[in-house]
Amino acid sequence: MGERTGEVTCGVGVSLDGYVAGDGLSEEKPFGDVDPTKMHRWRFEEPERHREEMAYLSEEAGAYIMGRNMFGPPGPEYDRTWRGWWGDEPPYHAPVFVLTHRSREPVDMKGGTTFTFVTDGIESALRQARAVADGRPVLIAGGADVVNQYLSAGLIDELWLHTVPITLGHGRRLFEGVPRLRFEPVEVRGTSLVTHVRYRVLGPWQN
Amino acid sequence: MGERTGEVTCGVGVSLDGYVAGDGLSEEKPFGDVDPTKMHRWRFEEPERHREEMAYLSEEAGAYIMGRNMFGPPGPEYDRTWRGWWGDEPPYHAPVFVLTHRSREPVDMKGGTTFTFVTDGIESALRQARAVADGRPVLIAGGADVVNQYLSAGLIDELWLHTVPITLGHGRRLFEGVPRLRFEPVEVRGTSLVTHVRYRVLGPWQN
Repeated sequence: MGERTGEVTCGVGVSLDGYVAGDGLSEEKPFGDVDPTKMHRWRFEEPERHREEMAYLSEEAGAYIMGRNMFGPPGPEYDRTWRGWWGDEPPYHAPVFVLTHRSREPVDMKGGTTFTFVTDGIESALRQARAVADGRPVLIAGGADVVNQYLSAGLIDELWLHTVPITLGHGRRLFEGVPRLRFEPVEVRGTSLVTHVRYRVLGPWQN
Repeated sequence: MGERTGEVTCGVGVSLDGYVAGDGLSEEKPFGDVDPTKMHRWRFEEPERHREEMAYLSEEAGAYIMGRNMFGPPGPEYDRTWRGWWGDEPPYHAPVFVLTHRSREPVDMKGGTTFTFVTDGIESALRQARAVADGRPVLIAGGADVVNQYLSAGLIDELWLHTVPITLGHGRRLFEGVPRLRFEPVEVRGTSLVTHVRYRVLGPWQN
């Protein structure tokens, strides 16, 4: 709260070469041609750290925004009945706004997570998220395309990168197509499986 | 010395989106369309940290390898008389092997730096560097193309990334065209202008 009222935060896992996921996303392959146990190995092998990270975010965040590809696999059949990757009780415990092209009724999950589908763009999703976040930060959860859209629009205040020490070579790349930005690292820590850096987004720059 | 005998280390500054330099390198623009005082702001504004970093490397490194584009601007006229970007006494104080397509006599500089021009490839340059390094590490100094060639060939043991908190959007990209690799971060530290992470290169991985 306090000075962070209404802030927009983004937390995303990236490979050392800047990819958030591989190519070829499907129901069987939520990270495309990258095994999630390799891409997010620290979340499996350092569950305490993962829980802390998630608890911190869910205590902080008043609402979440995510892209359609993060919510579910591609394909219109998943636009009708899919209820997310996270089982009956997703780890968000807050309203989640899903950016999509197909309208759909909201879905209530256990533990306080609701999925609301937004078809009129990123600014509308942010307005709706802020309206329910009650002054707490709104968290942009991914994937890369959505994060890049919000970065390009200058709507993200803080970016948390969880850099995993593997390269992917191709896939969905963070910062792809985003105008040049300046940041300030405000926190750096890590283990042998992940490096966490929290950045303030300072704004655009030109040479 | 000791267990690091003969190791190959690489230290390189990268933007947050993974570029080592911009496009359009020239004598006036050694980092292409990126102002070096912005790309390497920490070296100017934190000179003490920069000196420590350089002193550490030059005490450690027994020889250096760099690419032709790091040594000088493009164009055949620079292949004949150019003596590097660094004035009469370059900061290397050791033999430097420059990968190039045009042969040229070695150039002796003040303070122990010699530039030797290698036309028969990265493995030859590494052999020559090791032969004079007397068991101390060989340092791959850049640019991106040379680092990527050595990474692809599996010849780098340790990679130090100095990540600067700006995005460039285009340019010479680290890891471009390099097969998937696994790393282990062994040291993480930083300031508000740069994040230093030292990685061990563990080798290739497949999904």
